[in-house]
Amino acid sequence: MAESTTKDEISLVEAQAQASTPAPAADAAAADGEEGAGPSKKAAKKAEAKAKKEAEKARRAAERAAQLAATAAAQAEDHAVDNYGQETHDTKLSPDVTLISLKNLGEEHLGKKVELRAWVQNSRMQGAKMAFLELREEGTWAIQGVVAVNAEGTVSKQMVKWIGSVNLESFVVVEATVEKPLEPVKSTRVQNYELHITKLFVVAAAPPVLGMTLATANKAVTNFSDEDTPVEEAVEKLTIEGQQPDTVPAATMMTHLNQIVMHKRSAVQTAIADIRVEVKHAFRDYLRARGFKEFEPPCLIGAASEGGSNVFGLKYFGADAFLAQSPQFYKQIEIAGGRKRVFSVGPVFRAENSNTPRHMTEFTGLDLEAEIVHDYHEVMLILEGCLLNIFKVLEERCAREIELVRSVYPSEPFLVPKEGEEVRLTFAEGQKLLREEGPEEYRNVSDFEDMSTPQEKALGALIRKKYKTDFYILDKFPAEARPFYAKEDPADRKVTNSYDFFMRQQEILSGGQRINDASELSERCRTKGVDPESPGIKEYIDIFRQAGVPPHAGGGIGLDRVVAWYLGLPSVHLAAYYPRTPKRLTP
Amino acid sequence: MAESTTKDEISLVEAQAQASTPAPAADAAAADGEEGAGPSKKAAKKAEAKAKKEAEKARRAAERAAQLAATAAAQAEDHAVDNYGQETHDTKLSPDVTLISLKNLGEEHLGKKVELRAWVQNSRMQGAKMAFLELREEGTWAIQGVVAVNAEGTVSKQMVKWIGSVNLESFVVVEATVEKPLEPVKSTRVQNYELHITKLFVVAAAPPVLGMTLATANKAVTNFSDEDTPVEEAVEKLTIEGQQPDTVPAATMMTHLNQIVMHKRSAVQTAIADIRVEVKHAFRDYLRARGFKEFEPPCLIGAASEGGSNVFGLKYFGADAFLAQSPQFYKQIEIAGGRKRVFSVGPVFRAENSNTPRHMTEFTGLDLEAEIVHDYHEVMLILEGCLLNIFKVLEERCAREIELVRSVYPSEPFLVPKEGEEVRLTFAEGQKLLREEGPEEYRNVSDFEDMSTPQEKALGALIRKKYKTDFYILDKFPAEARPFYAKEDPADRKVTNSYDFFMRQQEILSGGQRINDASELSERCRTKGVDPESPGIKEYIDIFRQAGVPPHAGGGIGLDRVVAWYLGLPSVHLAAYYPRTPKRLTP
Repeated sequence: MAESTTKDEISLVEAQAQASTPAPAADAAAADGEEGAGPSKKAAKKAEAKAKKEAEKARRAAERAAQLAATAAAQAEDHAVDNYGQETHDTKLSPDVTLISLKNLGEEHLGKKVELRAWVQNSRMQGAKMAFLELREEGTWAIQGVVAVNAEGTVSKQMVKWIGSVNLESFVVVEATVEKPLEPVKSTRVQNYELHITKLFVVAAAPPVLGMTLATANKAVTNFSDEDTPVEEAVEKLTIEGQQPDTVPAATMMTHLNQIVMHKRSAVQTAIADIRVEVKHAFRDYLRARGFKEFEPPCLIGAASEGGSNVFGLKYFGADAFLAQSPQFYKQIEIAGGRKRVFSVGPVFRAENSNTPRHMTEFTGLDLEAEIVHDYHEVMLILEGCLLNIFKVLEERCAREIELVRSVYPSEPFLVPKEGEEVRLTFAEGQKLLREEGPEEYRNVSDFEDMSTPQEKALGALIRKKYKTDFYILDKFPAEARPFYAKEDPADRKVTNSYDFFMRQQEILSGGQRINDASELSERCRTKGVDPESPGIKEYIDIFRQAGVPPHAGGGIGLDRVVAWYLGLPSVHLAAYYPRTPKRLTP
Repeated sequence: MAESTTKDEISLVEAQAQASTPAPAADAAAADGEEGAGPSKKAAKKAEAKAKKEAEKARRAAERAAQLAATAAAQAEDHAVDNYGQETHDTKLSPDVTLISLKNLGEEHLGKKVELRAWVQNSRMQGAKMAFLELREEGTWAIQGVVAVNAEGTVSKQMVKWIGSVNLESFVVVEATVEKPLEPVKSTRVQNYELHITKLFVVAAAPPVLGMTLATANKAVTNFSDEDTPVEEAVEKLTIEGQQPDTVPAATMMTHLNQIVMHKRSAVQTAIADIRVEVKHAFRDYLRARGFKEFEPPCLIGAASEGGSNVFGLKYFGADAFLAQSPQFYKQIEIAGGRKRVFSVGPVFRAENSNTPRHMTEFTGLDLEAEIVHDYHEVMLILEGCLLNIFKVLEERCAREIELVRSVYPSEPFLVPKEGEEVRLTFAEGQKLLREEGPEEYRNVSDFEDMSTPQEKALGALIRKKYKTDFYILDKFPAEARPFYAKEDPADRKVTNSYDFFMRQQEILSGGQRINDASELSERCRTKGVDPESPGIKEYIDIFRQAGVPPHAGGGIGLDRVVAWYLGLPSVHLAAYYPRTPKRLTP
């Protein structure tokens, strides 16, 4: 299924590509911003087939033209033939050339002969004797390159023409002299230097027409559905926050993922990926510094411990296996096995048929578990400190990336509480706030029934207004709302020693103290209608029969959600490297 | 299947436990060292059933005796009743008590009242008025505790007796005064202090009879099979390296895994886990410092890219999904997507029905991929540097742990080449060495046929003798021995720009330069008999059609193998947290 989607999408893209000029230009191709207003399926299929044929025709014509041009060029006298072309094993730059990286470019390079390896992200002929290029090395690091015919003949007219027509997003190696531009270059991140190109070879060519241009890739995604039906929430959000239409077309998430290479090359996706890397490192570094030991829980497990719904099953050498929905069982075995504090970073799986911008079938879990000395709030405060530190790290290290993401996906800055002013409400206090200050429909919410998602959002809005924070904790959830292993508050058995954390009104962490006694666990199982002898559950409870297990608590964070909600992205799929949804397993 | 194995094993353990005394003692229980020489299956089953019954009887008798004793104690006058017993919510220690951790214990604590939370790992009555305990806080950190009847009556005879009979491996909270022992304590890691216990409460009780004692858990595993048939290699190794039989019985891997809590509490497993943590961190830190960005490849994929054999498949919302056998495709997409250097740490899956101490169906892959500037050896040398750094880190930070592991699993120290003397042979040089100096049967090995495992081992032995190293590289593998995506050496098309790394004569890393051009890939596919239009392959090749992809190379390391072979362990299963084999998915 996923595959046929891919094929359809590719032909759609080809058809769209064909509609625009086949010559490389920044804004060509992939203009699928108008989806949903298109023709019927049949007509579309027919149109596609036709478009495909014509695209093929156009392409062949372009190839022929290129060949003719090449022959003509070869026939004319060209003293620069060794200075451009396709790179081969024998291609040599001048011996005195220095390899540079743009972020380290400085005054010491002025007038020097350098080597740059980069993508051609834009090009423009200035008459027949000069061409300007934008050469992108990595992320947003790009520099202007100029190539101009010279008197000595080492740069010929043919060379300039050839360079000016290199397909965009080809990877090239450039030999050039570093010079000061007449005035600072506005279109590239490197503004005070430019490269006067003396040689240019194509190392790896891009196709004549890109499936999605870089400019399109850097626009906000128009639709996050895996089908053609729009996901209302996402679209609404984008409409509300007002992306002004301009000349560059935007594309759907489907196109972005089918054109994954260009999707990833966009500045906005590079920035999101960089932010994600920092979140993960900050999580790990914070815990390592506090004596937590990392471990790897298994993905393949022998029993579906959470009852079998929403769990992927597979055949395993004649037996049944399942994909773990959470590493919790294994974190607890680590504690039972004598570790004081553990954490894990790894994939977790949910076989939930939810096609929303908030859900994925595989995501990265950041999980921790720790022995409690006197009170489970010790662990809750570590988790809080860990998240506050992540926000601090992002502000310190990723200001540029955050700004860049906001320029494409506008959002309010993420409000973080000041030290000493963290918001930690009990569930009952939260419900009280909703009853007293929330919308009409929440006048009668109970302290002992779980909150709905709209309720959570309403409460989040109240808290943001009242406490000026987008990050807060709800503590002491009612026993009704928690699984059998949640430890009851010994002082008030109607609530449990458990908590949820929220970012921008959405839950990103769930955790609490776990029961550490086998008979208490069995009893709670029965109260909850779970058979303590059922597969998965029995093995879980048996762990606490093997030896004395100290009291412990923990929590699990969804990495993708932390990134997405911190940045106020319209979909968690933008924060994942390779989002997995019920309808998509590629790329 | 996995489950019935579990049940059988539990009853076996119970039967064995019953054979020894039901009173807690360090060397009781789980004496399954004699497996393989046992009775027939039927007889064993019968014996088990009988043993089970008797064990149950003995247990009930012990419970009755304990109850009687408790009642008797309560009847006698006991002024210490508030100073011992089961911890409850109301249990209070003295207000002036300081929580300690053993590794920070110092002179400043002498004479102070402290709190320690620990496992009782051993206990011994000294007459009726004094008891000695070994209290283990974490890993190998244990201290001697003494409790003795005092004149004031705050420690009573009943209290001493009760403390002396706390089930081993119960988790307790202790209030005590820190004192100097008369002479250094030999049996615990803390030798210069002991705790004079004034209060002791059981926080979480262990069972009266452990499924496996700590002493047994700390012995070398006798058999790594998941069935009752021994895995010859592992057993042979242990026999050769001569574990002297002593009074503490050793257990099979099956028992260890069924008694995972005690398995993990053993000093040797804690040390292996600590070493594993350091390997992982060293890998990550080294690469982060060199500009590598971490990313998460997906586990769920839409097509079995390596041909469908050895790959786990599952139903995915009516379609088919597979579990990734390697993150390579995704590392390459990251490079195509503009990242210069990436790495990943995560699970990879192999549906290979190999029941050997070298194989697992799920293991942790350490993978990296990087753009090549001039030559793929740039990446090979990063990988080499990364591994050499791991060895250095282990020597510096884990000397104690390595020594501890060697005391249980004897091995020669791992030989690392000096800087500048790294061994990097071409495949052809390796074969030449085998032909000229290897065993008779390798007189005619070819430079263009892949090596067998025995051949690798023979070559490794030669290299160890000649170059004094357990770590080396074979470079330039013949095209025959590599997959279609391996880049041929442009100067000699019979070999590829690819390498394997070895530790103690076994491969731990495979890598090389990948073809970065779609048409070259298609052509190589056909040469290798792979259809470039087949599912998985087509999507792979299409990536190189989306835009120009720079030359790149990489490699993948098996974390479990690095740990196991560095330590010379008899099985990779000892290096994994939760080994997955064709016959085992629990715990």
